[in-house]
Amino acid sequence: MKKILLLGASGSIGSQTLDVIRADPKTFLLTGFSVGLRVEKVPAIIGDFPFVHHICLEREEDVAPLKAIYPSITFHHGDEGLKEIVEKCDSDIVVNALVGFVGLLPSIATLQCDKTLCLANKESLVVGGSIIMRMLSEGKGKLYPIDSEHVALAKLLSRVRREDVDSLIITASGGSFRGLTRRDLVGVTPEMALNHPTWKMGAKITVDSATMMNKGFEVIEAKWLYDFPLQRTEILMHDESHVHSLLLMKDGTYFADVSAPDMRVPIKWALYGGNVEFCLRHESEIAQFGDYHFRQFDPERYPAVGLALEAYKAGGTACAILNAANEAAVQAFLAKKIPFLDIEKEIRLALDSIQNVSNPSLRDILAADQFARLFVARHIERKSI
Amino acid sequence: MKKILLLGASGSIGSQTLDVIRADPKTFLLTGFSVGLRVEKVPAIIGDFPFVHHICLEREEDVAPLKAIYPSITFHHGDEGLKEIVEKCDSDIVVNALVGFVGLLPSIATLQCDKTLCLANKESLVVGGSIIMRMLSEGKGKLYPIDSEHVALAKLLSRVRREDVDSLIITASGGSFRGLTRRDLVGVTPEMALNHPTWKMGAKITVDSATMMNKGFEVIEAKWLYDFPLQRTEILMHDESHVHSLLLMKDGTYFADVSAPDMRVPIKWALYGGNVEFCLRHESEIAQFGDYHFRQFDPERYPAVGLALEAYKAGGTACAILNAANEAAVQAFLAKKIPFLDIEKEIRLALDSIQNVSNPSLRDILAADQFARLFVARHIERKSI
Repeated sequence: MKKILLLGASGSIGSQTLDVIRADPKTFLLTGFSVGLRVEKVPAIIGDFPFVHHICLEREEDVAPLKAIYPSITFHHGDEGLKEIVEKCDSDIVVNALVGFVGLLPSIATLQCDKTLCLANKESLVVGGSIIMRMLSEGKGKLYPIDSEHVALAKLLSRVRREDVDSLIITASGGSFRGLTRRDLVGVTPEMALNHPTWKMGAKITVDSATMMNKGFEVIEAKWLYDFPLQRTEILMHDESHVHSLLLMKDGTYFADVSAPDMRVPIKWALYGGNVEFCLRHESEIAQFGDYHFRQFDPERYPAVGLALEAYKAGGTACAILNAANEAAVQAFLAKKIPFLDIEKEIRLALDSIQNVSNPSLRDILAADQFARLFVARHIERKSI
Repeated sequence: MKKILLLGASGSIGSQTLDVIRADPKTFLLTGFSVGLRVEKVPAIIGDFPFVHHICLEREEDVAPLKAIYPSITFHHGDEGLKEIVEKCDSDIVVNALVGFVGLLPSIATLQCDKTLCLANKESLVVGGSIIMRMLSEGKGKLYPIDSEHVALAKLLSRVRREDVDSLIITASGGSFRGLTRRDLVGVTPEMALNHPTWKMGAKITVDSATMMNKGFEVIEAKWLYDFPLQRTEILMHDESHVHSLLLMKDGTYFADVSAPDMRVPIKWALYGGNVEFCLRHESEIAQFGDYHFRQFDPERYPAVGLALEAYKAGGTACAILNAANEAAVQAFLAKKIPFLDIEKEIRLALDSIQNVSNPSLRDILAADQFARLFVARHIERKSI
């Protein structure tokens, strides 16, 4: 019996994780969860999972009304509460399905407690990769990514000899604007950006998919997770999101991981500890082979990928700046304060303007994050005056 | 240094095998070869491979003129000569790139001599599978298939746990008439049949590809080679012949072997003993991902596959009858004696009319082959009167 704490229970990954837990009550027991502002979801989750005894909410003022109904449950709140719930809620596995930088500290807390981290929060590795990898090698905690591409790579790499692998190839759908040229992108709206062709996901990641910043993040994550040279990690455009990733072998053949786009596949893989035996096949997971479209990745069409790789190579706090500037700019785009093409410009400006701190401590990373966020917000405010 | 005897040197597989041998003279030494009627190819091959000391020709009358020029070479001829050259030519590996039933006895002779058989001749396993598999398990000989699908399956199966595999999936291009309905096939000519969309191959196999009898053969070969239940071996239509085969895993994901259609890939795999380390990547082998089309296999469009599976399930000499009837009917089609759609009818009639002998000896198989050939030839003659 594995006790699970789920951070981000009301989001897309969160609710699919609840599906997976619900489907195997002999193996999994939900003992705690967090939600952001959607507190109306809390009663239904408690109804389904009676062993929940810790809940974290985003706002302090939401605690009292729920505490009145559920007096035996311990409530936490805010960013500090996310760290607290990891430390206090009895659990073997923490599923981190938070969105953005806010996921970093709970990831670190999970590994500090020697627990297993099932990580859907990309930013933890993008921003804090060096810290997390050091904790993994020095402590007893484990990490399983929840991301179709990284799970595909993990499965593929586990089945080949590493020395036979020439390159890792991460596929990319190209996001909601893939049919458009850069020129066409002038004036696209948030509503248009949120219409992803193959995956149903939250707003932030759907915009990251449209800029392909998410693919830049994934290349960085793959580097941390599998330590394969960046120059042998490639991106391949693939419209249908059925082929999740590939290995190009030195003998010129490819190994591919193919399944219908269904996040329950990587969620199950992670929750069952990478043990595919337990990932029982179910019909919706199986790709019905139809027409698959592949084409070369065009870095000029998607400069966000180049920004991400540049930040990774710069090291230090550059990835924290990259991520914070991206979060602030995407938020501004979704609030219709800046046009879509300004997301990349804001990141470019932040990377060029903010001092990089090498060999950063966690405190340096937190500071870089806060400063870059403020920097972008101020710059956007000034432009709009 | 591996000494190689190449049977069928003047055909498509044969000449590509010579390319592979030529490319690695430190590893491979050609010591003998056979050609059919294209004796004009002999001098060039001897010029390139001076260690050749045994040659087999199809016709006895071709021997004397060549013997006069190359007195130090031992010449053999005819079907008996193919067996003789296997036994007498000093070699570690016999590459059997013969077309049709004639390949069976040299395959058996190779394993009798405890040599390594690199087998492009499909008919050896289709007709003599039980004999060949028994020799492999009892003797010291080895077998490596030379066929893009079976090499793909071998590579894939070597990298997974068998108990994790749900099904084998063999891809099929659908051959030269894949865009046509059964009704459209009335009146198609040999010239039209020989225009294969993705592979350049000999005439017989190109017609087998148009009827998809070759795919029926491949399912039977896969059964002998990998002993996976027939009901979990599927055919998937794939236009581009880049994805050579797939495994559907029990967790609902697929492993695929992808490379540009280039027979040197499976030839190299077989010659290097299934050791992918030596299969150095070269650019032409690497698939440039473009658009891939997949669709369900339609057994009613391609009844030859059903005939093949029926013969395999019937056992005994049924596969010998199937193959001989197919060879005779394809020959008659290529000679414009019967229309394309009669190929299947002749096979159907032969399977229905000729007595099946169970637990056949090699002699029974040879007799069934001869009789079925005669039966089909006579039937075609009678129809044309």
